[in-house]
Amino acid sequence: MSRSGTLFVIGLGPGHSAVMTDQARTALRQADVIIGYTGYFAWVEGLVQDKECVALPLAQETTRAQLAVDRAQQGQTVCVISSGDAGIYGMASLVLEVVEQRQVGTVLPDVVVIPGVSAINACAALLGAPIGHDFAVMSLSDLLTPWAWIEKRLMAAAEADFVTVLLNPKSAKRHWQYGRAQEILALHRAADTPVGVVRNAYRPDQAVDITTVAGMLDVRVDMLTTVIVGNSQTRCFQARLVTPRGYDVAATR
Amino acid sequence: MSRSGTLFVIGLGPGHSAVMTDQARTALRQADVIIGYTGYFAWVEGLVQDKECVALPLAQETTRAQLAVDRAQQGQTVCVISSGDAGIYGMASLVLEVVEQRQVGTVLPDVVVIPGVSAINACAALLGAPIGHDFAVMSLSDLLTPWAWIEKRLMAAAEADFVTVLLNPKSAKRHWQYGRAQEILALHRAADTPVGVVRNAYRPDQAVDITTVAGMLDVRVDMLTTVIVGNSQTRCFQARLVTPRGYDVAATR
Repeated sequence: MSRSGTLFVIGLGPGHSAVMTDQARTALRQADVIIGYTGYFAWVEGLVQDKECVALPLAQETTRAQLAVDRAQQGQTVCVISSGDAGIYGMASLVLEVVEQRQVGTVLPDVVVIPGVSAINACAALLGAPIGHDFAVMSLSDLLTPWAWIEKRLMAAAEADFVTVLLNPKSAKRHWQYGRAQEILALHRAADTPVGVVRNAYRPDQAVDITTVAGMLDVRVDMLTTVIVGNSQTRCFQARLVTPRGYDVAATR
Repeated sequence: MSRSGTLFVIGLGPGHSAVMTDQARTALRQADVIIGYTGYFAWVEGLVQDKECVALPLAQETTRAQLAVDRAQQGQTVCVISSGDAGIYGMASLVLEVVEQRQVGTVLPDVVVIPGVSAINACAALLGAPIGHDFAVMSLSDLLTPWAWIEKRLMAAAEADFVTVLLNPKSAKRHWQYGRAQEILALHRAADTPVGVVRNAYRPDQAVDITTVAGMLDVRVDMLTTVIVGNSQTRCFQARLVTPRGYDVAATR
């Protein structure tokens, strides 16, 4: 059997090349073939012009992962590109699962995950410092996860006063989950608890809104929106959210 | 009153310049003065040689934040540098709190938070894809947070099957908290649940260990260690952790 290639799974950051790391660029330069969702190729244009680029539509995540492992097993250096951080609801877990499945009687590629600035980091920065203390991150999509698990996690995060980051709050086909999440959070948070809502962070149509637990259903959200619900300590001033770490900033110098 | 300057709070990434973003570099180039913990200046050496650099020892976080706001109020362009992501247990919340305190009768600086690859992103990437699904992030340091809150969050994260990221597991002065955290997690996780332990991610003395909930106290941890405890779905193969998103990777193509 021949030697297998390297398979990089790369987080490109939230969608602006200034938020990409050099580590990601270096991996792209080494690649024979780059595989990703069609929309992501615009972000890496200047880096991939002499490469084979396989652009696949959204919802073909498994196909992308399998193709990437195929090519690496043929000896190629492969890059799978993901938005944000490839390890957070990204392509890294899928690629590794495909490799795991092929473990028997074959040469496996070396998988290298290159971290990126996730939507969570980016949206939090645009809001100020909402995740300056303990936080929970969860997706409201119940396409692949039973809603009962999601609801249990929402209750736990709300009860234990975690700042709560909600991803995929709504989609074209999912409407009620975000409302139910708000109901659960409202059981354990004051109505005026600050909430930040960021759509399309660092993209041309970026929108940053600050609202409250009581008002969070009045702000438009979709699949590209991140909602950060403050905890009991989170404050809002001048359109910024801050969850303090507990330092006494008033201490005399 | 004169116009106030801009205050950038910058996440440098985990400590290797290849994991820094261009956005961070651009902000550093614009700065009149750069303020940070002494150890971080080595990471930005080539970028700051013509700048005023104020290096302050660890544990002077509040002083650093106050000095930064002073300088920005004097009209300077100021960069506060943080490792990882400045918004996650970093300097962003402190700087904003100092600004909040000075709100009355003064010109406030424009604070811009520049996100970075956090220790969480970096350690997860080195382990494979442990945070491919819902996760909770918490610090075990009870210096500024009551232990009762931390314990409540540990129980909630364990019960609700969040992948659980533990920061600051131990320090020179804090010994028992990590053991107590393990006890709580072990109540709700199988003894063989995979656990990843990463020390000094992307730094010269990087160490990556994979263990289990039963074995996690046998691996050395300190302030620069991130511990990622899998959930009921997390698997380990070939020294990689994967928490699946739920796709059927065996589906026929």
